[in-house]
Amino acid sequence: IDVFWSIIWHFLMAIHNLCLLLLSGLSTSVFALLLYTCAPWPSSVHPGRSEPLDLHLGMFLPTLLNQATPEQMDRFFMPAWNLEIIGTYARLRWATVKLCTHLRGLETTATYDPSTQEFVLNSPTITSIKWWPGALGKTSNHAVVLAQLYTQGKCHGLHAFIVQLRDMDTHIPLPGIDVGDIGPKFGFSEVDNGFLKLDNVRIPRENMLMKYAKVEPDGSYLKPPSAKLTYGTMVFIRSLIVGQSAFSLAKACTIAIRYSTVRHQSEIQPEPQILDYQTQQYKLFPLLATAYAFTFVGQYMSQIYHRITGDINQGDFNELPELHALSAGLKAFTTWTTNSGIEVCRMSCGGHGYSCSSALPDIYAEFTPTCTYEGENTVMMLQTARYLLKSYKQAKAGQQLSGIVSYLNEMEQRQVQAHPASARPTVVDINDLSNLVECYKQRAATLVDLAARSIQQELQKRRSQEDAWNNSAIDLVRASDAHCHFVVVKLFTEKLSEIGDTAIHAVVSNLALLYALHGITQSSGDFLQAGLLTVPQMLQISVRIKELLCQLRPNAVALVDAFDFHDKKLKSVLGRYDGNVYENLFDWARRSPLNATEVHESFHKYLKPLRSKL
Amino acid sequence: IDVFWSIIWHFLMAIHNLCLLLLSGLSTSVFALLLYTCAPWPSSVHPGRSEPLDLHLGMFLPTLLNQATPEQMDRFFMPAWNLEIIGTYARLRWATVKLCTHLRGLETTATYDPSTQEFVLNSPTITSIKWWPGALGKTSNHAVVLAQLYTQGKCHGLHAFIVQLRDMDTHIPLPGIDVGDIGPKFGFSEVDNGFLKLDNVRIPRENMLMKYAKVEPDGSYLKPPSAKLTYGTMVFIRSLIVGQSAFSLAKACTIAIRYSTVRHQSEIQPEPQILDYQTQQYKLFPLLATAYAFTFVGQYMSQIYHRITGDINQGDFNELPELHALSAGLKAFTTWTTNSGIEVCRMSCGGHGYSCSSALPDIYAEFTPTCTYEGENTVMMLQTARYLLKSYKQAKAGQQLSGIVSYLNEMEQRQVQAHPASARPTVVDINDLSNLVECYKQRAATLVDLAARSIQQELQKRRSQEDAWNNSAIDLVRASDAHCHFVVVKLFTEKLSEIGDTAIHAVVSNLALLYALHGITQSSGDFLQAGLLTVPQMLQISVRIKELLCQLRPNAVALVDAFDFHDKKLKSVLGRYDGNVYENLFDWARRSPLNATEVHESFHKYLKPLRSKL
Repeated sequence: IDVFWSIIWHFLMAIHNLCLLLLSGLSTSVFALLLYTCAPWPSSVHPGRSEPLDLHLGMFLPTLLNQATPEQMDRFFMPAWNLEIIGTYARLRWATVKLCTHLRGLETTATYDPSTQEFVLNSPTITSIKWWPGALGKTSNHAVVLAQLYTQGKCHGLHAFIVQLRDMDTHIPLPGIDVGDIGPKFGFSEVDNGFLKLDNVRIPRENMLMKYAKVEPDGSYLKPPSAKLTYGTMVFIRSLIVGQSAFSLAKACTIAIRYSTVRHQSEIQPEPQILDYQTQQYKLFPLLATAYAFTFVGQYMSQIYHRITGDINQGDFNELPELHALSAGLKAFTTWTTNSGIEVCRMSCGGHGYSCSSALPDIYAEFTPTCTYEGENTVMMLQTARYLLKSYKQAKAGQQLSGIVSYLNEMEQRQVQAHPASARPTVVDINDLSNLVECYKQRAATLVDLAARSIQQELQKRRSQEDAWNNSAIDLVRASDAHCHFVVVKLFTEKLSEIGDTAIHAVVSNLALLYALHGITQSSGDFLQAGLLTVPQMLQISVRIKELLCQLRPNAVALVDAFDFHDKKLKSVLGRYDGNVYENLFDWARRSPLNATEVHESFHKYLKPLRSKL
Repeated sequence: IDVFWSIIWHFLMAIHNLCLLLLSGLSTSVFALLLYTCAPWPSSVHPGRSEPLDLHLGMFLPTLLNQATPEQMDRFFMPAWNLEIIGTYARLRWATVKLCTHLRGLETTATYDPSTQEFVLNSPTITSIKWWPGALGKTSNHAVVLAQLYTQGKCHGLHAFIVQLRDMDTHIPLPGIDVGDIGPKFGFSEVDNGFLKLDNVRIPRENMLMKYAKVEPDGSYLKPPSAKLTYGTMVFIRSLIVGQSAFSLAKACTIAIRYSTVRHQSEIQPEPQILDYQTQQYKLFPLLATAYAFTFVGQYMSQIYHRITGDINQGDFNELPELHALSAGLKAFTTWTTNSGIEVCRMSCGGHGYSCSSALPDIYAEFTPTCTYEGENTVMMLQTARYLLKSYKQAKAGQQLSGIVSYLNEMEQRQVQAHPASARPTVVDINDLSNLVECYKQRAATLVDLAARSIQQELQKRRSQEDAWNNSAIDLVRASDAHCHFVVVKLFTEKLSEIGDTAIHAVVSNLALLYALHGITQSSGDFLQAGLLTVPQMLQISVRIKELLCQLRPNAVALVDAFDFHDKKLKSVLGRYDGNVYENLFDWARRSPLNATEVHESFHKYLKPLRSKL
């Protein structure tokens, strides 16, 4: 935790730059966006590492900007700006899967006491203790705490309260506040993720963030104008995670592909580069294509978010449900793929991938929580499925769907075929991307239909809605996954039309084709089952994939160089731009803490005394 | 590194026990087996953690026992026994993939000098530096070093030499020896994996391990009686790794399944246990079935190894190639599956899986190198493929194959069908395990055939043998994978006949059926493509899997309890036997190093001074 304070000045520089932007008259939501974009992602502050102040910059300040009244801004913002107040955002309790439990006893409560005009905060049960928030353990002296609001005897659901945790001077926790670190984790060693237990902690009424919902001095409650606003933030964060997936996978691919051209390993002389092995190409090039695909998807999500945000500000919420559903599914789809992809990259570097000098262990340990946070992935997939099933029903009822789910309009034509071989295959030309997009679309439609039928069958067995849903959950997740896969192939294909340079177009088209064809082989059963492709076509695809690997080989290094990671940012000895790996690996090893002394103290302390006893 | 010396007495107790066994007259190879079995695996010494002395116990001593002459035993064994000599085994150089490079300049050399009767050891290039051996960095004062033997101007390949690295009293490295730690890794923080660079280091002739190969005082070289003996050790270690896969996956399943019955998460009242969700069952129960499958495969490998070792001692090497091929493929198959399975278990615990309190991050970080060491997995799969292709050719040539590859005899009958729907499906009853074994067998046969045809086609294009092989490598790995999958399903099915208790038989049969059917859905394209199953059967299988999940649910906890991991060994707060997770998680967190003081020193050291500057 210590070492990261030393780079505090970088943080201040970032704030300074943002300040200039703020003064130039940007809206608070754009400002929050800037804070978010600059802070928790590896491009600023301390490149590539998380640190305790991330939460202050990325969550506490933006929450103030979004939810504080002008009076609250006056009271809290400048002290926070000057780091007198150091804040975090305490939302999570024990169970981090965000099925938003609203049950009494499971959440921290904030009960309004009109006699003193204070809220009394309590964590009534062990499961209501806040758990995981970054920088909560040791760094922060304030937190935005989400708690169930009780006033005039009624519960009004989760609201945000500013709670002072520690004395401003001594940093000692205040009475009633039980706060501390939650212990070692897989990664993020530099961040003091914490717990918080509140025992009759009183805060002034004015510490509830009241830009939208309000509690009057007499305790009467005023509802916020629209609950849909909070969706916007979730969508935004999830679309950032899609970009983060692209970023992390691109980093891992860069390291693995560069190193695979440095390393030789064979009995053949001259030794071929590892990257000349078909198996190595087959591991890495589909992931390279995926990194490109996710980059484009991330860009698309960000564009569409900003367009729709404009609509929302105009009071138009029409497109929000679709975007919300899409962001949930794509968050899960991209993080799962990236998560396993990073490990494939790491292991493709052989033993050295396991050394921290490769940077890959850190990339993995820091990326993997994205599968769980901001919506656990299976839950996310089921959210998307809910939207798909709703749309499916609307289409069945004769409603004309628009947007990305409009393919469900054509539902009637397509079902799982009992005899696929007799069906006319959808794909005529396996080299034609628009054919393949159509194929992915039909697969998604088929699987949505399959899930819907499963629910129907369950309901016919007189199961409850919940049970029918749960008993079809495997099919629902499968349908969502196919839907997301379709979206990614579609967006990748559409992106090609934006590439003017013919040489670049040719290479990126090959990447897109590899992405689409590889995906088909990985789920070949789906495509065969739905009669979308024939067995001979499947064999053709396998052959075509091998050709594409060969065709991409000469451009592989250029394709990762194009991600433009500076060595300083990549921090990988194996992934060095100059390829000078072995000398630098030796240098890196010499700097190991254990090499500080030629004879380690354990020899004198343990080994030698022990030996004399034998 | 320090803390692990403190448990040295446990180690000595283990040695003491083994010593008694030794004195009771066991052969050295059995003794080595005992050392191996007891030492590097988590059941002894320091349960569940690796430590610097593992290599001494697990590699150095057994190597002496297997390869030292009686004179060498006299000189080295007792000092090593008494920890005066602390040894390791320095085999690996930079590239840890074991394609056994025999090229000059890439390996450490040992050149015999008859004038002084010494070997002169050198690491001529940076890539010949030994890298990765455990306990080499700081702990060991001796190492068994593998080096290319040169004598009378000829190279005789890799041989083992005992090299003293550090002064016995001061522990300072000897002249010409450049030794140190290789730096932080993903896991194994307690082990000082090291590097070793030798510069004209002279050792007496008698330090070459000469039980088999010999160099006479005049420099003449005597070949070892059989090169096949070294295969035995590789087979042995790989079969241990199969057992290790079962062990690690069983641990991860135990934690995830127990925790899934503790945790509730829903808006429904009463909240169902997480394990009641179909998606959670679908994540965990196939892995549970896999853990059982691998346990049985591990037992089988160990039995067959011992049977064949008996044959080898009689000079009968007939079964060794098959066992060698099988152990390579199964090592890759089981470690890859386990590697990703542990992560599924971890993520199925939500956010808490990411905390070290779950034990899952450590299980993963310590297991994952098995995919790379003792034969990189893709290389292992290709070794198995080589055996399969050789057998395939023999069968084509009319030779009658025996053993596990005998299914290739029936080759002619089966090929990839252009119109699978018109083919008669192999499986009549999807609930009949013997039908399913047949189905997996036919799939393997089909894919071996496909790979063989690919090589044939490449050769027809006038490619070299090496290129034809490389250009078919994807198909070859796929064939090996299918072969291994067949073997696992077959062994699991055969195991059922050994279960007498009908109730247990019923439950374990369901597990086996789930394993087989789930595997089919995961590679459904293979089975459809080969015409082994029809589309309606595939839909039936999906329905049947859901039924099996329900049927297994009541026994899930009992099935993990049956692995019989003591809490002390599991070391997981989430996976506690008593299910009392939350109170203990809080206790665990309070013991976090960061909670040693209420106010962390970083506040006084950095935050406060910084604040005063703002």
